[in-house]
Amino acid sequence: MNYGIVLRVLGSILILEALFMVPSLLISIYTVQADRLAFLITIIITGITGFILNRKKTDDRYIRPMDGLAIVSIGWVLISIFGALPLYISGSTPTYIDALFEIVAGFTTTSAIIVSNVEMLPLGILFWRSFTNWIGGMGILVFTLALLPALGISGFQLFKAETPGPIAGKFVPRIKDTAKILYGTYITITVIQVILLKIGGMSLFESLVHTFGTVGTGGFSIKNANMAAYNSNYIHFIIGLFTILSGVNFSIYYSLFKGKWKEILKDEELKLYFIIILIASIAIGINLYKTSYSSLGLAFKDSFFHVGSIITTTAYYTTDFDLWPSFSKSILLLLMFIGGCAGSTAGGMKIIRILIIFKLIKREVLKIFHPRAMSPVKLNSKVLSNETLAGIYSFAGLYIIIFALSTILISLEGVDMITAASSVIASLSNIGLGFGTVGPMESFSEFSQVSKIFLSFLMLLGRLELFTLVALLAPKNWKREI
Amino acid sequence: MNYGIVLRVLGSILILEALFMVPSLLISIYTVQADRLAFLITIIITGITGFILNRKKTDDRYIRPMDGLAIVSIGWVLISIFGALPLYISGSTPTYIDALFEIVAGFTTTSAIIVSNVEMLPLGILFWRSFTNWIGGMGILVFTLALLPALGISGFQLFKAETPGPIAGKFVPRIKDTAKILYGTYITITVIQVILLKIGGMSLFESLVHTFGTVGTGGFSIKNANMAAYNSNYIHFIIGLFTILSGVNFSIYYSLFKGKWKEILKDEELKLYFIIILIASIAIGINLYKTSYSSLGLAFKDSFFHVGSIITTTAYYTTDFDLWPSFSKSILLLLMFIGGCAGSTAGGMKIIRILIIFKLIKREVLKIFHPRAMSPVKLNSKVLSNETLAGIYSFAGLYIIIFALSTILISLEGVDMITAASSVIASLSNIGLGFGTVGPMESFSEFSQVSKIFLSFLMLLGRLELFTLVALLAPKNWKREI
Repeated sequence: MNYGIVLRVLGSILILEALFMVPSLLISIYTVQADRLAFLITIIITGITGFILNRKKTDDRYIRPMDGLAIVSIGWVLISIFGALPLYISGSTPTYIDALFEIVAGFTTTSAIIVSNVEMLPLGILFWRSFTNWIGGMGILVFTLALLPALGISGFQLFKAETPGPIAGKFVPRIKDTAKILYGTYITITVIQVILLKIGGMSLFESLVHTFGTVGTGGFSIKNANMAAYNSNYIHFIIGLFTILSGVNFSIYYSLFKGKWKEILKDEELKLYFIIILIASIAIGINLYKTSYSSLGLAFKDSFFHVGSIITTTAYYTTDFDLWPSFSKSILLLLMFIGGCAGSTAGGMKIIRILIIFKLIKREVLKIFHPRAMSPVKLNSKVLSNETLAGIYSFAGLYIIIFALSTILISLEGVDMITAASSVIASLSNIGLGFGTVGPMESFSEFSQVSKIFLSFLMLLGRLELFTLVALLAPKNWKREI
Repeated sequence: MNYGIVLRVLGSILILEALFMVPSLLISIYTVQADRLAFLITIIITGITGFILNRKKTDDRYIRPMDGLAIVSIGWVLISIFGALPLYISGSTPTYIDALFEIVAGFTTTSAIIVSNVEMLPLGILFWRSFTNWIGGMGILVFTLALLPALGISGFQLFKAETPGPIAGKFVPRIKDTAKILYGTYITITVIQVILLKIGGMSLFESLVHTFGTVGTGGFSIKNANMAAYNSNYIHFIIGLFTILSGVNFSIYYSLFKGKWKEILKDEELKLYFIIILIASIAIGINLYKTSYSSLGLAFKDSFFHVGSIITTTAYYTTDFDLWPSFSKSILLLLMFIGGCAGSTAGGMKIIRILIIFKLIKREVLKIFHPRAMSPVKLNSKVLSNETLAGIYSFAGLYIIIFALSTILISLEGVDMITAASSVIASLSNIGLGFGTVGPMESFSEFSQVSKIFLSFLMLLGRLELFTLVALLAPKNWKREI
């Protein structure tokens, strides 16, 4: 392993994190609340640690696969460990484990909550946890790559490890430029949503935190009643619209910017994403109207909002969907596995993988009629390599296996099976909300400390798309023989 | 399509079914019960239909893939349609749909029940439904192949379509001989278990029906209290032992007979099968002892019995496992997906597929360290072809997708999510028992007629391992482009 480069990059990440905390510090100073000291101490500790790591000299700037794994995994763990300090020091959470859980949930855009009464938290803390949604959504390493002196071609290892989806795409030759375009787009969308929410009557502070939660597909709110606190169809519409927009592959916006309409219109993942949203919303809308809702309009509004919110793994809510009939809940549960598009800020297995798995199944059925044909699988008219396909079905298999085994472990808490299963998928797919005792009106506070650490691990596993972390944990003595 | 050969084979199957009903007719005559006429009428109708179909002349004896699909699928539907007649005519079930559900559940060895009070059914009917477990376990086409005048090499299409597992194995060159060996082994195991149950104090009738339910991994009982009706550790031990033995690939018994010990000991699927049973039993045993059981011995006895019963998709029970803690129930639920070994009478996804999926995931993790290596995947030291691998992951993907979508559909019944999910997997994996309102103390009678037909379809889909039926239903105009 190239320790020099690993430590240097980790140092840069921590310095960046310290800088990211400055706005929260300023808010805490401005509001004269108890979290002032907490932010000051954390910024100093984080900054100094970063500088020490960053001073490590290295001539070899090549990042090997193993170095990339180490940087991404340790990097995400480090920002969580330091990022949790303000919550703990300010007394916002009862224990450090709770603070860690909350901030891992922030960075991974899971936004599972421990503190049910968020309205009593200091504003600086509220800003910080929402800001972690924003940073984690696009990725702190992508940000680092945009700022760092060029790491050369090797920075692609980092980019690939942090950007969700089976096929990491650079739209422009240099990874640094790709990272800049991604953050440029991200900031543009953020600014637009902040303005639109402000127009809808939210304060600037509310607009900011809820935009962070939306575009990062995180879902942290500063209201105990979440989006139900805003009795405005306009605000619900803006939040709903921007969650769905944030679940789209960001390369689509670059194509849009470049005027490549044809490419967008024939993008298979985008098409399936909208088809799933449409079918799920209509099915749930009708189901709600037929069972419990008296207004068809409200049934469809609630249906669309929550389908968008769940498939993008954001999990803002305007009503307690845990009270919906089983049919609607089962659809939401399925959406929790699917998630948004690759290259978006959304979690889950990603639409593109589901699409390709369908293609593989279709090929298998066709093979029954034409046993000798083994047609290649194409995406957007490009043939996918066997390696890409192997990566996709192994990912899907591992996702389901991790889900199943984790559900068994979490059920040791004595919770019912639906709570166990949905708390696991809520963590793994970075949603933060499920059914039963992890439903909209509840929180994760009842889980034991061990389970909280385990669920935090699942969030990281989901955010970094499994293999990054699994590879690090793989037994060194695994034989090459399979 | 070669209609001649398709009709001829279908005719043979029906004649065979008529013959299979004779023992039940004799029992009904001997016991002078209301089902005498029902069997007589059914045998006549089934036999005549069979003779008419069988008279079809054909010179071309070659079975193409499409012919094989048609024979297997239509064959299974036909034996169910005719096999359900005695139940309906004798008034054992309120409607014909119920009769069909019960007999599809019999042939597919699902044994989901509609009639909760089985003890009031006539003995001939009880014998017939249990006998369908036995016939369906090994497969009616495999039986037909053993009897029919040689269909030549082409009979392999039928064998492959009905024998569970991704790699259909002939142990001897001629398919007719393989089929004979399989049924020989099956009958031997059956006779041994009947004797052992008789020794344990069961009547000959009870020994027969429960042996059918065990070796076919079906699970139909003639007692309302199922195995709890027998207060005998010996009987529970025999039933438990033979369920586990019936979940083993029958080629293992042929190797045993041939004295090929080495082959058996290094069989990877067999090893994993026993490891899963062991780990699951110990985990559940400890969980039961720590929560609700006062006796460690009883906790482990119940744990082993039900793990064996569920993983082999038999679903005999000695206690209401729906009352167990979530941890134990989640493990059982996972076992419902896994199922027994390929080439056994058990349902589910099969151990061999799980094993190979694990190997694919391991290869993917190794690839992170050695990006250029794409090691071949081996089973029992033999390299698996890309086609076999493609078949396996497509099967697994389709299994999960069918499970998820069916659960959503069944939840329209207004049942809770666990009932919906477990009734679907209980049907698809041919178990017949789940949790909630399809738990051990309940039945499938509450479902609507539409759902009963849908669940029957899932049973057939699971028994014939998806692709056989899916291919038949695939849109004819599917483009070859994927």
